[in-house]
Amino acid sequence: MKLEIPELKTASVERLEALAADLRAQIYETVSENGGHLASNLGAVELTIALHRVFCFPQDKLVFDVGHQCYAHKLLSGRADNFSTLRKSGGLSGFPKREESDFDCYDAGHAGTSISAALGIAKARDLRGENFNVIALIGDGSFNNGLVWEALNDLSELGVRILIVLNDNGVSISPTVGGTHEILTRLKGNRREEDVRVLERFGLTYMGAVDGNDLHALLPALEGAKEALKGGSVLLHVVTKKGDTFEEAARQHSIAASSGEKDNSYSRALGEELCALAERDGRVVAVTAAMADGVGLSEFFRRFPERAFDVGICEEHAAVLCAAMATQNMKPYLAIYSTFLQRAFDEILIDVCEQKLPVTLCIDRAGAVGEDGATHQGVFDLSYLSLMPSLTVAIPRSIAELRAMLRLSLDYPLPLAIRYPRSGEDDSPCGEVEIGKFEILHSTMSDIIVLAAGERCVKLAQKALKLAEARGYSCTLVNARFLKPLDEQLLSSRRESTVLTVEDNVCVGGLGDAVRRFYGSEKRVISLGYRDEFLPHGEVSALMGAHGLTAERIAEEIEGYARG
Amino acid sequence: MKLEIPELKTASVERLEALAADLRAQIYETVSENGGHLASNLGAVELTIALHRVFCFPQDKLVFDVGHQCYAHKLLSGRADNFSTLRKSGGLSGFPKREESDFDCYDAGHAGTSISAALGIAKARDLRGENFNVIALIGDGSFNNGLVWEALNDLSELGVRILIVLNDNGVSISPTVGGTHEILTRLKGNRREEDVRVLERFGLTYMGAVDGNDLHALLPALEGAKEALKGGSVLLHVVTKKGDTFEEAARQHSIAASSGEKDNSYSRALGEELCALAERDGRVVAVTAAMADGVGLSEFFRRFPERAFDVGICEEHAAVLCAAMATQNMKPYLAIYSTFLQRAFDEILIDVCEQKLPVTLCIDRAGAVGEDGATHQGVFDLSYLSLMPSLTVAIPRSIAELRAMLRLSLDYPLPLAIRYPRSGEDDSPCGEVEIGKFEILHSTMSDIIVLAAGERCVKLAQKALKLAEARGYSCTLVNARFLKPLDEQLLSSRRESTVLTVEDNVCVGGLGDAVRRFYGSEKRVISLGYRDEFLPHGEVSALMGAHGLTAERIAEEIEGYARG
Repeated sequence: MKLEIPELKTASVERLEALAADLRAQIYETVSENGGHLASNLGAVELTIALHRVFCFPQDKLVFDVGHQCYAHKLLSGRADNFSTLRKSGGLSGFPKREESDFDCYDAGHAGTSISAALGIAKARDLRGENFNVIALIGDGSFNNGLVWEALNDLSELGVRILIVLNDNGVSISPTVGGTHEILTRLKGNRREEDVRVLERFGLTYMGAVDGNDLHALLPALEGAKEALKGGSVLLHVVTKKGDTFEEAARQHSIAASSGEKDNSYSRALGEELCALAERDGRVVAVTAAMADGVGLSEFFRRFPERAFDVGICEEHAAVLCAAMATQNMKPYLAIYSTFLQRAFDEILIDVCEQKLPVTLCIDRAGAVGEDGATHQGVFDLSYLSLMPSLTVAIPRSIAELRAMLRLSLDYPLPLAIRYPRSGEDDSPCGEVEIGKFEILHSTMSDIIVLAAGERCVKLAQKALKLAEARGYSCTLVNARFLKPLDEQLLSSRRESTVLTVEDNVCVGGLGDAVRRFYGSEKRVISLGYRDEFLPHGEVSALMGAHGLTAERIAEEIEGYARG
Repeated sequence: MKLEIPELKTASVERLEALAADLRAQIYETVSENGGHLASNLGAVELTIALHRVFCFPQDKLVFDVGHQCYAHKLLSGRADNFSTLRKSGGLSGFPKREESDFDCYDAGHAGTSISAALGIAKARDLRGENFNVIALIGDGSFNNGLVWEALNDLSELGVRILIVLNDNGVSISPTVGGTHEILTRLKGNRREEDVRVLERFGLTYMGAVDGNDLHALLPALEGAKEALKGGSVLLHVVTKKGDTFEEAARQHSIAASSGEKDNSYSRALGEELCALAERDGRVVAVTAAMADGVGLSEFFRRFPERAFDVGICEEHAAVLCAAMATQNMKPYLAIYSTFLQRAFDEILIDVCEQKLPVTLCIDRAGAVGEDGATHQGVFDLSYLSLMPSLTVAIPRSIAELRAMLRLSLDYPLPLAIRYPRSGEDDSPCGEVEIGKFEILHSTMSDIIVLAAGERCVKLAQKALKLAEARGYSCTLVNARFLKPLDEQLLSSRRESTVLTVEDNVCVGGLGDAVRRFYGSEKRVISLGYRDEFLPHGEVSALMGAHGLTAERIAEEIEGYARG
């Protein structure tokens, strides 16, 4: 079933309900195949239909927060035919993308930006004397984020009119936590006057709560909000059931492609190891920003609830909370995705590193993450972490090495970052791990030495070595498991004239730069990593391949310089 | 007059008032001499005395927000004898520093961290079964910051008891703006029940407002808050007059050392140039985060109030607001200090750069800033900006060059960052500026070429060249005015075997690394910049000298490699 937007404006509610069922089936089918965010998208289908019915996109602007609710919007805005390409290389993005369609007015990916962005768009509209509606669609999970507060504070100052549609399903990724959530819960039940005032203080007219899965209720509510918007900014509180009719979806925030992405063993190892550490040492606490499951901490949360903290999508607060606990001789572990840690850049630098506090950053989804695309790639962390004084940066090449590093972290007196990818699987044993010491994996006489960081790159290099050896060349291969400090003793002792570095990070500011800085002009340093551009969505191996991170390319470099 | 803390506990209010007058005089005297934050510190004297009277530090923990109100605290906690060393190299820091005193429990410098930090300290206390009070002292300017929202959201979840003392003087650096400010203003006047509820929704008991410059009112209010704290978290709203009796101080947020730091000419040039651009082009808008004066935009705010936006201390929101306005064909200029831009790292990367939006970052106080110390140095920006794909990074070496770059920015279709120091003064004319093109300042046959970035480093290099020439050596000297893109054409054409880079930034990830990456092993690249450590407070020239950024050192390098 396909409704063009003009029909959608006049169709009966029953027909819209049939459309909703159809969209839901399409989403379910594609996500089951390609992976993606299921529950959030299924829950927002009626809401998206209603928005398209009541407003005129792309003249009106719909700004998504995070953007993981945008599938129905894509289906309704001329992208149904390509929908099977969702999250595939060259296909539709799983997030709003301006370059993909005029209907996507602002790229999203990280939480909390929608109200700020809607305000900016509305302010520009007013300055230019234009006339259209601006709608920010935000989930209750994002609502905790500090950016929302900053935007709400600025709302009356800017004096623009926007509609904030709060899609409240009570579950962000982990169940939504915190004071805002409690207020929203009260609003849903018994709309107490003083709770409403919380939002009205910022110059918003509060409307709702309305059942966001019931078009009979939703359409008039949205029409009412559109009308009220003529008088000032409005917050429409919409309550949806995440996943709606697909029950299991409510428990599945995002699902990996059915093509077989496996359970993340690094995350699981993190959880197991932190439980073991917490068992031994009462100082151990774990902090996560709405990602307890994703980072592997569910069991820790069950076993040590008093030492497990989910602060919501508030990475900055998470970092400061850890720093402060560390001043009191606690041992905080902040488990977080690489891309989201970017939000706490200043706090890691100023609160953690400047104070030299023993906070351990457990950075998951480092390197290319694949299908989530440009806004989610974890390919900048080695660069932005290595510029931070007093921070140690570790890159385990196996699950065993992650475990060893975590054990080492317990008594380590300084800030420590450990970064590892999703879907690692190397569970081979590892030897002794010492801060700032590399591991020689293969030693031979040659004129080139390969320094590889992390499981993906070590494996590529090992494969490359096999290829090269089959053709009569060889090299020494090193597991560069600490970017900072580098193993200067090992580096100083090497005789090879050429060093090849391989990293799952942008070349700018990463391992290659660090090694080149160390050697100066003493050796030729060639570095493989991502070029200076944003990586689109697509399979990790394809992304790596497009940037020369392949065994064949590494083998060519080995063969090019191997002598002796 | 000097009161030891035991006496302070029992002294009469009149005696405390005399102490306040005395502290105020000491602060005024030292700040007039050494520079620093005057008004905020003068305004908080009675409040600080009251806190020391009612609570027992360092057993109880006083967490400062930003920390620019800590002078009276330093005077009362055993540091009066050293107070004349305030902000001097090796002397007392102008901000709380754990390494300086047990009375400083958490280092501060950037806004909004105090409530998060207080929560972390209080949670650790409870986990360890200890018993002390934790107080966050925060100004109304910081209260807009997103971190505050994130912390308030987590307050009930963490279930700890803290006292938040809100020092509300209605002026942060620029007058406080935004919705929170309006709520606070209402609370001060007529304490309307629904306004109180705003704060109580987060699990806080609201107390106040009390006159923070009247010890007769303040002492019982603080005693009451301490008592109430036994039952749960409390927010005590204290209204102070910034600067109190020193009237002019209320208009002076911070003053530079009387030793003669001059007016910031780069900031003034920015303001003038943006006014000229705004005059010509209706798309031009300027955004600042509570720093309109500091970044030189006062005149712009007066002349173009409808296109000038002070969003409060909300750097993240500022960045997203700019990105969103740029999607609507506006031309936003975000004027901000280097160290505070760190707060918007993720938004600059994801919202501005990933969307390739033509936002211009006007980054003031880049490089070493001197007396404000470790938390304020602008020495990381070249590193964290150069890792961002699609960002152009410019480093003017003179005021004329800043002006030229700004004129160039108007039609530049991509994200652009321009960074410049405080207290620059080079107003010599400059030639044509083209994106990605260096400027040859001195050309000669030699085997070493010097690439210097920014006024300070270009001047050092020019001085070094004179020294070297006096001793019979020379080199070609280049103004490396774009870190990104590098002038690859110029670099490729050079014959010298050695390149010396000079930058007012940490070496990790800066110009030296970029040049080294470009040349690979082709040339010897030596880079001068700050070592991988936090720079303490002290004079800029002393800081630079301690890291080898001196004309003599550059001359030595020139002489070491100059041949031909």
